[in-house]
Amino acid sequence: MFNPFFKNYGPISILEIIKILNIKVDKLNSNQEITDIKDLYTANTSDITFFHSKKYKEIAKDTKASFCITTETLKDDLPKNCKPLIVENVLVSVSNLTSKFYPESINDDFDETVISISETEFKDKVKFGKNVLIGDNVSLGSNCYIGHNSIIEKNVNIGNNCSIGSNTIIRNTIIKKNVRILDGCVIGKHGFGFFPVKNKNLRYPHIGIVIIEDNCEIGCGATIDRGSMSNTIIGKNTYLDNQIHIAHNVKIGENSIIAGQVGIAGSSVIGNNVKIGGQAGISGHLKIGNNVEIGGGSGVIKSIPDNTKVMGYPAKNIKEFLRENK
Amino acid sequence: MFNPFFKNYGPISILEIIKILNIKVDKLNSNQEITDIKDLYTANTSDITFFHSKKYKEIAKDTKASFCITTETLKDDLPKNCKPLIVENVLVSVSNLTSKFYPESINDDFDETVISISETEFKDKVKFGKNVLIGDNVSLGSNCYIGHNSIIEKNVNIGNNCSIGSNTIIRNTIIKKNVRILDGCVIGKHGFGFFPVKNKNLRYPHIGIVIIEDNCEIGCGATIDRGSMSNTIIGKNTYLDNQIHIAHNVKIGENSIIAGQVGIAGSSVIGNNVKIGGQAGISGHLKIGNNVEIGGGSGVIKSIPDNTKVMGYPAKNIKEFLRENK
Amino acid sequence: MFNPFFKNYGPISILEIIKILNIKVDKLNSNQEITDIKDLYTANTSDITFFHSKKYKEIAKDTKASFCITTETLKDDLPKNCKPLIVENVLVSVSNLTSKFYPESINDDFDETVISISETEFKDKVKFGKNVLIGDNVSLGSNCYIGHNSIIEKNVNIGNNCSIGSNTIIRNTIIKKNVRILDGCVIGKHGFGFFPVKNKNLRYPHIGIVIIEDNCEIGCGATIDRGSMSNTIIGKNTYLDNQIHIAHNVKIGENSIIAGQVGIAGSSVIGNNVKIGGQAGISGHLKIGNNVEIGGGSGVIKSIPDNTKVMGYPAKNIKEFLRENK
Repeated sequence: MFNPFFKNYGPISILEIIKILNIKVDKLNSNQEITDIKDLYTANTSDITFFHSKKYKEIAKDTKASFCITTETLKDDLPKNCKPLIVENVLVSVSNLTSKFYPESINDDFDETVISISETEFKDKVKFGKNVLIGDNVSLGSNCYIGHNSIIEKNVNIGNNCSIGSNTIIRNTIIKKNVRILDGCVIGKHGFGFFPVKNKNLRYPHIGIVIIEDNCEIGCGATIDRGSMSNTIIGKNTYLDNQIHIAHNVKIGENSIIAGQVGIAGSSVIGNNVKIGGQAGISGHLKIGNNVEIGGGSGVIKSIPDNTKVMGYPAKNIKEFLRENK
Repeated sequence: MFNPFFKNYGPISILEIIKILNIKVDKLNSNQEITDIKDLYTANTSDITFFHSKKYKEIAKDTKASFCITTETLKDDLPKNCKPLIVENVLVSVSNLTSKFYPESINDDFDETVISISETEFKDKVKFGKNVLIGDNVSLGSNCYIGHNSIIEKNVNIGNNCSIGSNTIIRNTIIKKNVRILDGCVIGKHGFGFFPVKNKNLRYPHIGIVIIEDNCEIGCGATIDRGSMSNTIIGKNTYLDNQIHIAHNVKIGENSIIAGQVGIAGSSVIGNNVKIGGQAGISGHLKIGNNVEIGGGSGVIKSIPDNTKVMGYPAKNIKEFLRENK
Repeated sequence: MFNPFFKNYGPISILEIIKILNIKVDKLNSNQEITDIKDLYTANTSDITFFHSKKYKEIAKDTKASFCITTETLKDDLPKNCKPLIVENVLVSVSNLTSKFYPESINDDFDETVISISETEFKDKVKFGKNVLIGDNVSLGSNCYIGHNSIIEKNVNIGNNCSIGSNTIIRNTIIKKNVRILDGCVIGKHGFGFFPVKNKNLRYPHIGIVIIEDNCEIGCGATIDRGSMSNTIIGKNTYLDNQIHIAHNVKIGENSIIAGQVGIAGSSVIGNNVKIGGQAGISGHLKIGNNVEIGGGSGVIKSIPDNTKVMGYPAKNIKEFLRENK
């Protein structure tokens, strides 16, 4: 995962990790330094990984990680090079440990680092409105516009020829070239991710960012959450209408068109040249193929193959929907 | 109804009330002073109440109020101690009279009392961003954060360890401990309540407030309206995702989880441990039991008993929904 | 179309227009000056018009325009007085030419003309909050309120007795008398209108405005886009709840009531005394008659005649819907 923003405070020694996880482990050969926490596929020998569902059995078999947070029932699918660390709840443990590697990813309070844009190097470079604030670690391209009361919080890169509207708030986001973001958007905040715990839910860290590719347009009042363990991505030349909600880890392809008030739940992947009508909703963890058309108001609860037109709730082939509803 | 915010300008004498209602009443023994206007159940002998629908017949029989705004056809269900005041439209009359007891509840223009937080006692107590405004009758707990451009308008109590995002506006609201409210929310404005009148609708007063209990999280862009004759309540440890609309008088229980773009219409009551999927809508005046799960995109138009999973539009048992839509 | 805001930079000579359209035309009698670009019905002899679909054949026959942007297959339906200009894509060409007549209609970057209201003539005329900004060509009636951080951008007329909330942004809009617009709205930005082009969509100009008639109320977080070739209109005494999206060219009649989170897609026309329940969606280019009631959550994909109650997705007669879903 490409993430230039959240500083990795590792390495953390494996003995320290075991302490953080509050478990007991025997037969530990050495106090190895662990560099990072990564998924089964991308982890390297210096990393720790996690394995929480049978779904990932095939990938688990080939992981290169030296350690893996997992359960008693899953541990036997790990290769010999990877020592299982048995915990009660894998994802809660992963969340705890991730917070240690990336402590800055768990704070989504307002950004205290911001200063007025007129006190920054950008004051002669971009056109800006009244009361514009700029946080730490921000870069702005040439020929950009930033509207009144907008807040470019910490960890934002904006490319050339971009126009940000008024009353918009952005953090932890990379915006490429020729992008327009209209008024009243909130981009890059943590997603709706937590472990339900009675009386006090446990939030998990969001170490992903938002990436908005060239030539996109984001309508008024959009909320685009940053990813948890991967990035939220809006592909090149994709246009979003007003009041759209894009949840964490969503990836949208290129040249797609998404009408007003659409919501896309966490981790769904949308293809290229996709058209989504107004108020449609897409459940989490789905794959919507290329050239798919989803009728307005649809509720999509299954993945959709390429080149398909669907409509309805639950969404089905549009011809079938229209025939049944003549 | 607990409401520390709207000042009661009573008592108002019964003769004055009769004038306000523009009716004629004979056989009035004395010019009693009336303390307040309350519902049939909570009204006391010094109060006036109202009775506008047969539904409340059983409660009407036992009201302790000395006077009741009602109609010719309903009046006979009132007890002897309660004198009926016959009007054409009960709710319009109640609205008129309530405005006299609580004149401050009908003004939702911007709050002219606000001043910069740096001119208040809070400037050394909480962490705050640029351009934060504080209205009359505000209290803030310790260890709180208030983001840029946010406006804590009049009549707001915020407990300890709360984090308010940027561009958020709050009035007439009690926020308990450890609550996070993200960016761009509007909380405590009047609800969508009025009597349709040709060419000039008649707004009714909203004398309720919003109460957000401990450990809640409210996502970006939420709108939570205050109650009209009762309070709008978000129970302990309930989490709301982005772009959610909660209408007046809604009560949500504890430990509930409500995903993005959900809307809950006026006066519905949601139980504890309820899960509501994205974009679901719940009609007004319904009762959703404890441990209910409502699938994303559902349209709920009937009350739902405890421990039930529903989905669809209209929402039905989820197994039935999935079977019918295989 | 009534539009006092976007300056017409015409006339443009027909030879210049032919150059702009990048086409070849023979037998041109003279280099006529063209005053404006208008639809087939309203165009006059000094105007150019366009004809892109057989649907408009009957109107095309009687157009008074001297020139018409059209296609080889449609041109024969034009009258003799109207010379066809054959292009590949009529709407793209119209868009190009409209941008030349109305260059100011294509820029929706933040308004650089604004200044603090306290530097304007309005400072003694209206009540205003902190950080209120006023753009060029704004007029404000008496007894108005404008809330904190709100931006009345260029080209806005507001009548008497209006109340604008906080954090609201308005441009290119006429607001008549006694209108209340609550917090966090964005009104008058361009609609979601463009020609999809691989890698770089082509936006078309929005030369329409928004008109909000007397006694309306617009809830928190509304987005109301201005029209493209006509105006977006909210009729007298129509009330909109929170988080509503009204797309370009929509016209809503008088005394209508629209509940939370409703979306109305482009160019639909809604009658008088219409009631629309929460989260309902109305597709584009439909006609919803007078006295229509649309149940909450409905998805309307066909026009609806007067005096009809509908519900469902797709919306059908409400009795049928309820019978089928008992």
